[in-house]
Amino acid sequence: MTDQHIASAFDRDLEKIQAQIMKMGGLVENAILEAAVSLEERDEERAEQVRRNDKAIDALEESINEEAARVIALRAPAAIDLRVVLSVMKVSGNLERIGDYAKNLAKRTRILAHMEPMNGSASSLRRMAKEVERMLNDALDAYVSRDAELAQNVIDRDIVVDQMYNALFREFLTFMMENPSNITSCMHLHFIAKNIERMGDHVTAIAEQVVYLVTGAMPDEEREKANTTV
Amino acid sequence: MTDQHIASAFDRDLEKIQAQIMKMGGLVENAILEAAVSLEERDEERAEQVRRNDKAIDALEESINEEAARVIALRAPAAIDLRVVLSVMKVSGNLERIGDYAKNLAKRTRILAHMEPMNGSASSLRRMAKEVERMLNDALDAYVSRDAELAQNVIDRDIVVDQMYNALFREFLTFMMENPSNITSCMHLHFIAKNIERMGDHVTAIAEQVVYLVTGAMPDEEREKANTTV
Repeated sequence: MTDQHIASAFDRDLEKIQAQIMKMGGLVENAILEAAVSLEERDEERAEQVRRNDKAIDALEESINEEAARVIALRAPAAIDLRVVLSVMKVSGNLERIGDYAKNLAKRTRILAHMEPMNGSASSLRRMAKEVERMLNDALDAYVSRDAELAQNVIDRDIVVDQMYNALFREFLTFMMENPSNITSCMHLHFIAKNIERMGDHVTAIAEQVVYLVTGAMPDEEREKANTTV
Repeated sequence: MTDQHIASAFDRDLEKIQAQIMKMGGLVENAILEAAVSLEERDEERAEQVRRNDKAIDALEESINEEAARVIALRAPAAIDLRVVLSVMKVSGNLERIGDYAKNLAKRTRILAHMEPMNGSASSLRRMAKEVERMLNDALDAYVSRDAELAQNVIDRDIVVDQMYNALFREFLTFMMENPSNITSCMHLHFIAKNIERMGDHVTAIAEQVVYLVTGAMPDEEREKANTTV
């Protein structure tokens, strides 16, 4: 941070909010992993727990936004500090979206648990989810330590998730063509793959916020997408 | 509004931001309709225009959020006014997401234009999009006029969109079972249907903000979803 604060009250407020962001991030990471494991193990009870836990994630977002607004109202931060507080709201918004996707994954797990398993797909999806969870972990580390290099590394890794999605998309198409009775479960699996790919996009958005905070400029917006299926 | 303001500077600031919200809403409504028409008419140039216009929507969201933050910093609004300003940020966030879904629809239009048309599906999708656009129009009217009744009406109508989605989901399944060569285009059409259904969810979220602003309480969170396919 380049600004000198007259008082450090703003910094203390900010630290408190960032601690909440980290807590929220931890819950979201857990939701990603748990949702993917419950899909692989066809564990409906575990999936149900992911759905229930999403309320805590939503409540944290609410509280972070209110706290951020309170800090803006109370401290009237100047340009660069205002940018930091606004970034907090963006990061919490992205985390909330990722949590929603994990909840959606858990919902579909309950449906898929009653269908024929699709030979290895659930394991591929779990690996994809694990990749996204690792990216999120690094993006949050980059966020607290204002590490633009690590953030850029996260942004670059999103292409791996896109490639995993493309491979799965082709696999599901093949399964459906081979046997029409696979169509319904493949459509659910395809949505799950798409949702995990979208989680990756939101992790990337968090990493982009870090780059923006540190350098003052957003990374190239039209970054190369490996996702060729839209 | 129940509060008496010492000065009306806050109200003037708020009016300016709400005017921007209405402008953003107009662009998003246009994006929904244009995306759906370009899909039905297989008009790639028109779809490309929707994609290009999304930048203006994103820029408006950015500017609304900055303006809202500036107002909070400058006026330090008390509880109820703060709630109004925070609602502005939520509404603009929802509008931005709806715009993104329209952009995504436009992207798929370009792909689908090179595939065999799926008998009547594009028209059904356009009708569904039209329904969502009407809901958005009413939600924004309800927002500026703080009309909780109209907002509740919008919330209630989301079930129609969910039902349209369910009907299309079954139709696409049938097309795919009938002929495996329909699978790829049906997967894209299914994503479009899902994205329009999600637009409806974001419109509902805007209407819920109106109810919250007027009554101080969010409508029942666990509202009945007609969407039985997740």
